Formats: sequence, structure tokens, C-alpha cells
Amino acid sequence: MTEPTNPPAAPDWTVSRWFNTDGAPSLESLRGRVVFLHAFQMLCPACVQHAVPQSLKVAAAFASTDLAVVGLHTVFEHHHAMGPEALQVYLHENRIAYPVGVDAYRDDDPTRAPLPLTMQAYAMRGTPTLLLIDRKGRLRQQHFGLLDDLRLGAGIATLLAEPA
Amino acid sequence: MTEPTNPPAAPDWTVSRWFNTDGAPSLESLRGRVVFLHAFQMLCPACVQHAVPQSLKVAAAFASTDLAVVGLHTVFEHHHAMGPEALQVYLHENRIAYPVGVDAYRDDDPTRAPLPLTMQAYAMRGTPTLLLIDRKGRLRQQHFGLLDDLRLGAGIATLLAEPA
Amino acid sequence: MTEPTNPPAAPDWTVSRWFNTDGAPSLESLRGRVVFLHAFQMLCPACVQHAVPQSLKVAAAFASTDLAVVGLHTVFEHHHAMGPEALQVYLHENRIAYPVGVDAYRDDDPTRAPLPLTMQAYAMRGTPTLLLIDRKGRLRQQHFGLLDDLRLGAGIATLLAEPA
Amino acid sequence: MTEPTNPPAAPDWTVSRWFNTDGAPSLESLRGRVVFLHAFQMLCPACVQHAVPQSLKVAAAFASTDLAVVGLHTVFEHHHAMGPEALQVYLHENRIAYPVGVDAYRDDDPTRAPLPLTMQAYAMRGTPTLLLIDRKGRLRQQHFGLLDDLRLGAGIATLLAEPA
Repeated sequence: MTEPTNPPAAPDWTVSRWFNTDGAPSLESLRGRVVFLHAFQMLCPACVQHAVPQSLKVAAAFASTDLAVVGLHTVFEHHHAMGPEALQVYLHENRIAYPVGVDAYRDDDPTRAPLPLTMQAYAMRGTPTLLLIDRKGRLRQQHFGLLDDLRLGAGIATLLAEPA
Repeated sequence: MTEPTNPPAAPDWTVSRWFNTDGAPSLESLRGRVVFLHAFQMLCPACVQHAVPQSLKVAAAFASTDLAVVGLHTVFEHHHAMGPEALQVYLHENRIAYPVGVDAYRDDDPTRAPLPLTMQAYAMRGTPTLLLIDRKGRLRQQHFGLLDDLRLGAGIATLLAEPA
Repeated sequence: MTEPTNPPAAPDWTVSRWFNTDGAPSLESLRGRVVFLHAFQMLCPACVQHAVPQSLKVAAAFASTDLAVVGLHTVFEHHHAMGPEALQVYLHENRIAYPVGVDAYRDDDPTRAPLPLTMQAYAMRGTPTLLLIDRKGRLRQQHFGLLDDLRLGAGIATLLAEPA
Repeated sequence: MTEPTNPPAAPDWTVSRWFNTDGAPSLESLRGRVVFLHAFQMLCPACVQHAVPQSLKVAAAFASTDLAVVGLHTVFEHHHAMGPEALQVYLHENRIAYPVGVDAYRDDDPTRAPLPLTMQAYAMRGTPTLLLIDRKGRLRQQHFGLLDDLRLGAGIATLLAEPA
């Protein structure tokens, strides 16, 4: 984990629907807190078998801190099988209690772009993708694929230790 | 694994739709072969994280034998999220190539029974459930929950070693 | 797991000292039973982390059968650190209760041969090595390195199913 | 991980022999660096199967930081089987390259105390035990048994983020 000298501001996310929250968490509203965002698809095997269980462990391990855990359902294939109603069941069955948003497409895009808007904004290469955003709203880590627990725990704690 | 003196005949399964096969495998058509049937739901966490990956390993480990591996999608909750089209995506994403059937409900049952027909016939308690059926079509093992690889491998091989 | 048409008779083992048994188990005395023999060194990392824990699981999973589990301490390096007294501690700490023998060297070999006698007889390439011997005393499987639980469970059960 | 308001100074360790270092690392010489010390016995199963492999992962994951990884061989039983020469083989076979010390007993103690001196100084309850010492030489975490990677990675990174 090398730190860039000048980390970029994390792009805003664009969400069409939120679960597990009454509001609509934004980067702005979370400013001052470290954000662990995991982008997933509910039928992506590596997400379901590894990244989502790991995110649940992160939420438990850092429950006493002010870490914000956010899920982002970045569906870019098989849309009919991973709609919001299916996602709701998935969240329920996996006992996911932190906020999860559905990455949005442009309403007026008749050709349906290949990737939803937040995936595009972050230039994500697929799922699962893990993001760490610092207290100042800067993107500090973006990882496509799996990350081992030791390094992920260290990455989160490093940002938690920084002043707001 | 204790063997009953007089194992019962395995009940027929009732399937509304098959995937990964042109035909419709039945216990009758598989007579003479050992059958490993795993009942699952595509949004059941223990199925997705453990039982289905294990079934894929079984299919690979016993590929040189005449073991028949069969999946049965026994949906008894959240039907709208686990329909056949979602299942098709799930099978594709997980590279499941052996036959998988959808456990059926009675067409003329206006109240929709709580459990599909094959679950009822086998008195299954939930998902995942593993079944081993011997060459004579007798139910030799039925296990609700997870089973470790060592015992499952032994259970299958024991039946494979029996004469038809 | 392919079976040779004409499996060779397993060579006798040559043991300088036994633990966990009053007698001295031999292939002759175990004739009629399937034998799972695991060759290990108490300071070989793959043995200690994987093969020995797996052997303990085998002993538990097949406790109701007549499988004979035998350990063989095949020390071919660092002799001063893996003598019988150190082995005794190792067996105690790991709660290994099945018979374990120390693979022997020739008493009158002043140059100390590079490998102990049983390793030589079986042409073992290193540790861990797993052996399966059938009820007729024939060597049916010999595997250097790690073997997954599913295949090992199947291999043992296949031999258990054969007549004596 | 709750932090004490006023963490105690870590006691000095007392080592009779060092491996993998020409010098003799002391808390004094490591002042300014975070220290991850893992106390183990080379024949303790939980150490060998979990804690030592985890310590090797820690050393790799934090190689680019100034974390000091130190092993301490705290033998309190079966001394004849875990002497320095056996330890040397163990370190070699497991490719442990960071400094490892042998926890010392008092030379003039004819009755051989039940625990070596550093174990006594830290009131360790057994092996494995993990210690985290901060840049100011204060004992910040002491854990008997296993600790999951996520929490250990976080604990180390938290201390690394503190000023010297």
C-alpha cells in the first residue's frame, strides 16, 4: 500500500435506490469519516463467496469506530436477475444491515450504457471492487478482486488514524 | 454413516424445468448408477458459499466414474427472486454443467403449498440438503446442512463400490 | 484414481521403535484390513500444517470401520532435532493416538544412508507421503504431497468396500 | 481494541540466545518503532498451524513499513525436545528470517522455575501469545490464543500511524 502524494477526490456515487437506510448517504454527508465501499453483484461468485462475507466481517470488526461501511450493487450484466427486489432478498438472507445502494443508469439513455454511472465514474474494471475513502473525501485505495484480511484491516486502520 | 438394514426406495422427483440437459433425468433413467443430488436455493448463503462449490468439486473428483450429479432448485421462499431465469444466470456464472431441475409445485394448487413437491416427498427440512441414492434406487443418505469433504467422498465411494 | 490391473504387494516396513502400541504392527498382522499409512517428519511444515491434521480427521471419520491408521516418522534430515524423544512430545501435544513407528536405518551402516529403510523400500520422494494398502496387502495408492479430503475419503472408502 | 488511557511500559525481555540477527534486539534499541512480538513454542500445535504462519504473513504484508517483527521461543514444557538446536531447524524449515530469541531461565535457579523470565514479566498465560508495543515502548495489546487477520492488521496499522 503506497500512498499517492496527492490523492484525488473520490467521485460522487449515483444511486437509484437505497436499502437499509432512510436517507441517502453521500460522500458529502459522510465527510469526516472513513468510508469502506464494496461494489458487488449478487450473482458474482467471487463477491458472494468472499467479498461480501469479508465486508460483513469488516462491519463487525470496526463497529466501535466511526468507519462507514457502504455496499454498492453495480449490476452490469444479467439485469433481469439482479433487480432491486432480488437484491432485497439477498440482503435479508445474508443479514446485511449497513446501507446498500443500487448503482444507477441514466434515465434517458435508450441504449442502456454498458456500465452504470458510479462504475464509470470510478473506472471500475468489474466486481468485486473495494474502495477506501479518507476523512477528507479522497480516494486512497481501489482494488479489483480479492484482498486479504491482513492488508484490508491495515488499510482501514491507517485511514482511521488520520485526523479529519 | 450407518447403513440401514433395509433402505427405502428413493421417491421420484418432480421437476417443472431442467437446465443443462436435453432430456429429463429420472430415478428410473439413472437406475444402475449412484446419484448424488444436492438440493439448494440460489440465494441461500450456506448453499452458495459451501454446498454448491462442494458439489462442483464432487463432479470434478468423480468425473471418471459413473456417478450422476444432479442439482435440484428447491425454492420455498422468495419465489420472485429465484425464478428460472435468475437460476439460469446463477448456473452460468458458477459454471455448473451438470443437470439441474426446478422442484415443482402443483399446477392446480391455488394456495401454493409451503414446500415444493420433491421437498415434500423427501421430507427435507431446508437447504442445503444432500442425498445419496444407490445403484438400486434406494435412498442411502440424506443430510440437511453441511457435510465435510472427507465423509462425503467416503459416502459416495462406498456406494460406487456396490454392484448394480 | 486409476487402479492398476495388477497392484504390487506393499513392501514391509522397518521400524526401530513404536509409539502408541504395545506390539509391533506389521503388514502381516494387518492383513485383511485396509491400511492408511502417512509418512511424515515432525518439523516438515506441510506435514505439520496439513497432512497430520488430515490424518487425525481420517482416524476420526473412519473410527467405526476396520481401517488401520499408521504413522511413520521418516526422518531423513536434521536427525538431531527429530529423535524419538522429540517425536514422543509431538505425538502427545497433537493428541495422536494411533500407532506411529520410526522408520529405521541399518545399524551397521557407518555412513548413514541418505534415506531410512522404509522410505527406500517404497521409493518415497519426501514428506508428506500417503499410502493406501488394500485388504490383500497390495499397495494401491502412493501420493507425495497433499491430497484433498474428497479424494482421500473416496480412496479409503473404495478399498474398505472390497472383500478381504 | 480498546486503548487504555495510560498504557504501561512494556517490560524488557530476557533472551539467552538470538537467531537470525547478529545483535541482540532490545526494547531500547527498537524504541521509535512498533514491535509485533509473537511468543510461541515450536511443538505447540496452535502456534505451528496458525500463529507462526500468520506472523510470516505479517512480516510480508508490513515489509515496506518500519514494523519490527520479533519471535520469542517461550519454552515452558518438554524442554529436551525444544532446545536451541531443534529451534534452529524449525526456523530454517519454516523460512523464518526475522529475529527470534529464546526466552531465558535464571542461571542460578537450581529448581528451574515453571516459566521463563519474559513469560513471567508479561504474565503470559501460555502460547501462542501476541504482543503489540508502540513507538514509545508501551504495551498496547497482549493476546493469548489466536487473533483474526482483520483485527491484527488493524491493530498493527493503528500503532504504525502514531507519531514516534
